[in-house]
Order: sequence, then structure tokens, then C-alpha cells
Amino acid sequence: MRDFTIDNLTEIVLEEYGSKTKDPRFRQIITSLLEHLHAFVKDVELTEEEWFKAIMFLTDTGKMCDDKRQEFILLSDVLGVSMLVDAINHPKSGRGTESTVLGPFYVAHAPEYENGASIIKQDQGGEVALVQGKVTDPDGDPIAGAKLDVWQTAANGSYDVQDPTMPEYNMRGIFTTDTEGNYAFVTEKPLSYSVPTDGTVGVLLNASGRHAMRPAHIHFIVSADGYESLTTHVFSAGDEYLDSDAVFATKSSLIGDYKESNDTDKAAQYNISAPFSHLRFDMGLMPVGAG
Amino acid sequence: MRDFTIDNLTEIVLEEYGSKTKDPRFRQIITSLLEHLHAFVKDVELTEEEWFKAIMFLTDTGKMCDDKRQEFILLSDVLGVSMLVDAINHPKSGRGTESTVLGPFYVAHAPEYENGASIIKQDQGGEVALVQGKVTDPDGDPIAGAKLDVWQTAANGSYDVQDPTMPEYNMRGIFTTDTEGNYAFVTEKPLSYSVPTDGTVGVLLNASGRHAMRPAHIHFIVSADGYESLTTHVFSAGDEYLDSDAVFATKSSLIGDYKESNDTDKAAQYNISAPFSHLRFDMGLMPVGAG
Repeated sequence: MRDFTIDNLTEIVLEEYGSKTKDPRFRQIITSLLEHLHAFVKDVELTEEEWFKAIMFLTDTGKMCDDKRQEFILLSDVLGVSMLVDAINHPKSGRGTESTVLGPFYVAHAPEYENGASIIKQDQGGEVALVQGKVTDPDGDPIAGAKLDVWQTAANGSYDVQDPTMPEYNMRGIFTTDTEGNYAFVTEKPLSYSVPTDGTVGVLLNASGRHAMRPAHIHFIVSADGYESLTTHVFSAGDEYLDSDAVFATKSSLIGDYKESNDTDKAAQYNISAPFSHLRFDMGLMPVGAG
Repeated sequence: MRDFTIDNLTEIVLEEYGSKTKDPRFRQIITSLLEHLHAFVKDVELTEEEWFKAIMFLTDTGKMCDDKRQEFILLSDVLGVSMLVDAINHPKSGRGTESTVLGPFYVAHAPEYENGASIIKQDQGGEVALVQGKVTDPDGDPIAGAKLDVWQTAANGSYDVQDPTMPEYNMRGIFTTDTEGNYAFVTEKPLSYSVPTDGTVGVLLNASGRHAMRPAHIHFIVSADGYESLTTHVFSAGDEYLDSDAVFATKSSLIGDYKESNDTDKAAQYNISAPFSHLRFDMGLMPVGAG
């Protein structure tokens, strides 16, 4: 194993990893990675200067990550890799709500609220919205006790973890469906916003001539015992970025239509003022193993 | 640009980057990267759990990097990518000394020494060696004033930057050839050693069933005005890891033969005791643009 050239190196590296790696799945992954990674380097005939720039790009991406920010997830998102993983693992089945990317700003352990509670912990003057719907199984039967972990940006376009002036868990909450499978919460109608561009992903988007905007959406992780967990968004109909999402995550079936409501009874029930923005969005879960 | 599936996503992502990226070289690189990266994810049908492990692996790799350690370079090294970049940019020409990997432990601005000086700043009881040779052009004419930036591990198998008990720049130095193109320095005969395994690269090597050892070597960067800079090693003949280098860097032409010497005059000249280990290794540089 010496005197490597362009012609024999990849083959020898593949043989080395392929013959020594014991776990079959890891062997499959590492040898496929090596094949594609070496092919990329050969295809573009990467220079040493470009290689070093790549090393520094990856290093800086790692250094941007902390418990509140995940630049490698964002990088995966803008390269379409996150959506590809989603498409592989959740092909469109025609049944159950479609999934989309998790994104880099999920935070576990948000507060659990009663249905109808508001996730607005800091009023920024956004348009108040009531979001409600039903969680059902493939037969349309309600799923009681399903958890909906929701999060979104505030009216200034930032998630709580991006903005130190916001209270913790602003615009986040966990809701549980009632016996009829219903959920409801009060929030602000989300706005389109820019993914963070002060890190390496910003450098990449700029070099690629791509904008950093995402269409407005609310993130959901919907889970219930015996059902596949669903990671998805509900986008807002009419958003100007639906067809140019920086992270390629838009799905037509996930677009929700916010309607202005003057229902004063409902307003009183949810402790908000009429008129308000009203979204109904039902979620369908699939039993474990049915996918 | 919505409703992506396994069948159309890669094509749309490639069109997005390909049509918007202005710089032609960056366009070539990013589209090739996307093709190979997406093909890898599809080939192995990466699960969401595996994707998240990969995200965390890359994040942790970035977090291991600081001004003294470069885990992404080490990762590139053990995957054979560094040697591939070397092979692409420095194909064997039959003229000039062959190159090999830089490695993750180069430190700029080592002390400049007179020829014959010792780079041992902390005596660890290794075998004292005199290393000398001539730097020449392709015609065999000496190159005066060439700089040789050398570094290696100490007898405990660590570079200075890995071991806080070592003085700064231990086993590093910059030498300049005299009017006859000669260089000389005193060091310890290097030993084979393990690349650091306390980071993500250690996890990868372990999962791959590969050892972490590198055959003994001294690193050199040789440079002179008008000549291509040469990044290389001199390996030690007889080392047990020459044919299983963890980073695939061994080249036969770079193996130097340390001989025991009883030359008491030479010993006195270099302020060392006889017998000592003696290596002669000449370096050939290529004029800029001749490659």
C-alpha cells in the first residue's frame, strides 16, 4: 500500500475500508461515500488551494454550531440533501400528511400548553392567528392524545434562539389533541424570512447567486403512540417564496389558507380580538409499519 | 419549485445552482459536488437517523479544530482525499522530489536556524540523528537559499502542539541551503506513531477496523524563489507501517535510509556524540511552470 496515483488510489482506499469494516451497513455507507467523494475530487480536479478552502469552510461550519444553532443542518437544507433524505424516507403515499424538513432551529422540551393557549410570549405586533385542526388516522378516525410540537419565527423574522432579546420558548409550544382529536393554539400568522446568512451558508448562497428566503410556515412534529412521527410545516397560501424556497421544502399539500374571521364568539373563546386570522389544518398520521 | 420527489429533486437543485452561480469554476465545483452528494445519499438510501449522525459527526469534527489541531484535514487524510488532491496536483513526473500530504500538524513561523543546529528543544532520549542533503534543480545544479521547513514528532509520538508539556516549536525549524545547496540539521530519528484517536477520526477508524498508525517520517516544505514549493515527507526505511499508512501517504522514492555512523569528526562538527544515526536525503525542486 504505497506509491498511489490518480489511477490506483481510489481502488486501494475502497479495498482498505471495504475489507476491514465489519458492520455491513456502515461498510456500505463508507465505501459509497468514498466512491462519490473521490469521484467528485477527480471530476473537478480540485486544486490544493480549493481543497484548503473546503477544509476551512467545513471547519467554520462546525464552529458556528452550538446548542442554539446548527449550521450543518442548514447547509444540508440549502444543498437539497435534507429534502432528499425526507423524500427517501417518506415517499408520497397519498395517505397521511406529507413531511418536510426539520430545519436547524428545533428545540426540544418546549412548554406544554392547554389547547387554545397562545405561544406568543412577546408581542411584536404580528397578525394574531388561531390555528386549529384534527389529527386522524388513515380511516379518518380521530387520534386522541397526539402531541403537536410547534415552532415558528416571530414577526421580526427570527426564532427565539436567534434573538437574545426574546424570552425563551417564544413562539414554541406542545399541544395535545382532545378526545375528538382536535388541537388549537393562538399564534401570529408567520411571515417569510431569511435563513441566517452570517455564517458559512450565507457565503455559499451568496457565491451561488441564490436568495436566502423561506416562505412563511409553522413547523410541526406530530406524534402519537402507535403512529409514525410526522415532521412537517404548514406553509401560508399566497406567500411569494413558495416556489423559490431556499431549502426546497415546499409541498402543495402543506399549504394552508389563513382566512380572516369576524367570529366574535370564537374570539372570546380563545381570548383574542375579532377580526383575526384563522387557519384550519388537519393532520393525518400513519400507523407504525404501514408506510 | 415545489413537490420534490426522489425522481426530480436532484435535477431541480442542480438547475437552481447551475443557472444562478456566476463564477464558472465555482459553478463546476458546486454542481459536481451536488451530483455526487445526492447520488451518495440515494445509493445508500440514507435514513434520517444516519443523516443526523452524519450531521453530528461533521459538527464534532469542526469543534475539534483549533489553532493547534485540524481534525478536518486529518479526516481528509484518512479518507485518502488529501493524497488524491496531491496525486492530481503533483502527478509523478520522474523529475524533482515527489510530494505527499501536509498533514494536520503544520505550524507556520517555526524558528529559523543555522545549518547544523538541533531542533530538539526537549531531550526525550530518542536516537540522535544528523539529517543532511542537497537541494538541486532538474539539471542537478544546487539551489542556494532554499528554505526547508521541517517538523516531526518527538520520541513520545506527539507533535509539540499535541503535548502541553513540550516547549513551543519542539522538533520544528526552518533551515536555509548554503551556496552549494546543502542543508543539515540535528534531530531525533523519528518513530512511527498513532494519529490522534480522541476525536471523530478515531471513531471513524475504529468503526472501519483500521489502525491509526503512520510510518515514521520527517515533514518537509521546501521552497525557493522561482521553484514550485514542495510539501513532502522523508520516511524511514524498515518501518513496519510503510505499507499500511493510515493516511495512504507512503511513496517508495521518499524512503530514506538512516545509517549508524562512527564519524567522530562529523559528530564534533555537529556537537553530537558518535555513534549517531545519519540520513542523507537530497531534494529536487522544479521551476515554476515546468510541472
